[in-house]
Amino acid sequence: MTRRFIAATAQLGPIARDEPRASAVARMQALLIEAHRRGAELVVFPELALTTFFPRWLIEDEAELDAFYETEMPNADVQPLFDTARELGVGFYLGYAELVIEGGRKRRFNTSIFVDKSGTILGKYRKIHLPGHPEYEDWRPFQHLEKKYFEHGDLGFPVFDAFGGKMGMCLCNDRRWPETFRVLGLRGAELVMLGYNTPVHYPPAPEHDHLQDFHNHLSMQAGAYANGNWVIGTAKAGREEGCDLIAGSCIIAPTGEIVARTQGFGDEIAIAEIDLDRCRELRDNVFNFALHREPEDYAVICAP
Amino acid sequence: MTRRFIAATAQLGPIARDEPRASAVARMQALLIEAHRRGAELVVFPELALTTFFPRWLIEDEAELDAFYETEMPNADVQPLFDTARELGVGFYLGYAELVIEGGRKRRFNTSIFVDKSGTILGKYRKIHLPGHPEYEDWRPFQHLEKKYFEHGDLGFPVFDAFGGKMGMCLCNDRRWPETFRVLGLRGAELVMLGYNTPVHYPPAPEHDHLQDFHNHLSMQAGAYANGNWVIGTAKAGREEGCDLIAGSCIIAPTGEIVARTQGFGDEIAIAEIDLDRCRELRDNVFNFALHREPEDYAVICAP
Repeated sequence: MTRRFIAATAQLGPIARDEPRASAVARMQALLIEAHRRGAELVVFPELALTTFFPRWLIEDEAELDAFYETEMPNADVQPLFDTARELGVGFYLGYAELVIEGGRKRRFNTSIFVDKSGTILGKYRKIHLPGHPEYEDWRPFQHLEKKYFEHGDLGFPVFDAFGGKMGMCLCNDRRWPETFRVLGLRGAELVMLGYNTPVHYPPAPEHDHLQDFHNHLSMQAGAYANGNWVIGTAKAGREEGCDLIAGSCIIAPTGEIVARTQGFGDEIAIAEIDLDRCRELRDNVFNFALHREPEDYAVICAP
Repeated sequence: MTRRFIAATAQLGPIARDEPRASAVARMQALLIEAHRRGAELVVFPELALTTFFPRWLIEDEAELDAFYETEMPNADVQPLFDTARELGVGFYLGYAELVIEGGRKRRFNTSIFVDKSGTILGKYRKIHLPGHPEYEDWRPFQHLEKKYFEHGDLGFPVFDAFGGKMGMCLCNDRRWPETFRVLGLRGAELVMLGYNTPVHYPPAPEHDHLQDFHNHLSMQAGAYANGNWVIGTAKAGREEGCDLIAGSCIIAPTGEIVARTQGFGDEIAIAEIDLDRCRELRDNVFNFALHREPEDYAVICAP
């Protein structure tokens, strides 16, 4: 199988709180069709791509909260995206809120899936680095209740085979932690896909608001370079329910260079050719892990 | 003690193979005096700052090789730098090749020390991530024999108290490995000092030569941001014995922003005010390790 293909980051503009999933799905279908028209065989959508970013509110009514989660995947609302992708022969990454009932207990995860060209879900990831806070904090202009609404992901950082190589996934805040990219890199990931919803305003340290784009790209570029893998990072962007989200969706080469990026804050794709063999430029040389890593000196990183 | 002070990166231009240590020391004294004149209380010199970067040659004569190493620190050649620093009340970081005789056996390390304002050696580090190759390779235009000329450092990544805070050290290639900054960060380092000798030309992947400055800054900026610590990185720069070394010495804030950098390829300082309390902007918030790290998912990073 070829290890060279065209991929797209498929950025979404804001999704309103009352926007139905069918509308978000139709927007993604349009982006997927456009990406396919430009030759893409892989499309990366954002985190929580089916709804508004609901952790910005305290939602005390359980039915109202549950309505933001998917209990099966695909489901009737999302099926059209699966169908279009299968018909066009395009694989995709999609983030969504997942609700699972286990032993009568509700479990909630911030999840992403990878769907191959035949419509098969090849990989699932549940977000490990949940940002924000677990309880309502009234001093904040908006909440970031991921630690309340999601459990810590229980699937580790899986990699899976597709496009003739090894693929990995993560979500949003995971990208700020070098451990995420390193664990995926040690497992052989050659392309890491991730979606994000990142507010411009960070209430605990607003003096850094002007650095949000810089930090977004710095984290992903460093993750790509230090592990010699491709990264595709996709934003939900723009002013969503009064909250500004950064854009800057991009495709990053194993050298850490941004080779494609979106230009605005709405629904938009950016594409680039991915050559998985380029990972070897780093992984056979400066980042040859077997020759140059020194794990005996890293113990504190894994200490509880 | 104040946690706010002025610091300097003190870049050196090339050192010729036949340049005596006394000359390199005199050049560093001049930089230290200039830094002090501009208010600096801390000066960071390069890796292997007393001699040319000798790992670029295969040196088969043992006496000739030994002549590049220091067997005690300070010694007569270096004492004037210690004296000037103590007189002016300036602390400094210095890299050099260290030769120790233990049980009749010669041990060789790529070493850095931190000397406080009173002239006391407060900390010593021996380089852990040795780049290059262990044997002569005749296809290379120049060698990079660090794996031949140095043992793996046996002191871990120590931190020590100075300037009212916690200081850490590393050397050159260590900066490309996120584990270096993370281990230091977990031990509380608020300022990481490092020197480097980095050729522009990387023989195994020359298609990346134009990216050397980008990779240098990317690695250090990511290390600063992801751990919320200051970084001072200092080059030996310029065309040394026919080999071009990158410059770009800089001081990086805990936000990852470069706040001062050198402009040329010769002996030159750049200064900035360091406020160690700024580390809290990151470490109390997005990079609050206790709240947000997930070490149970990192085991593979520490696996042998």
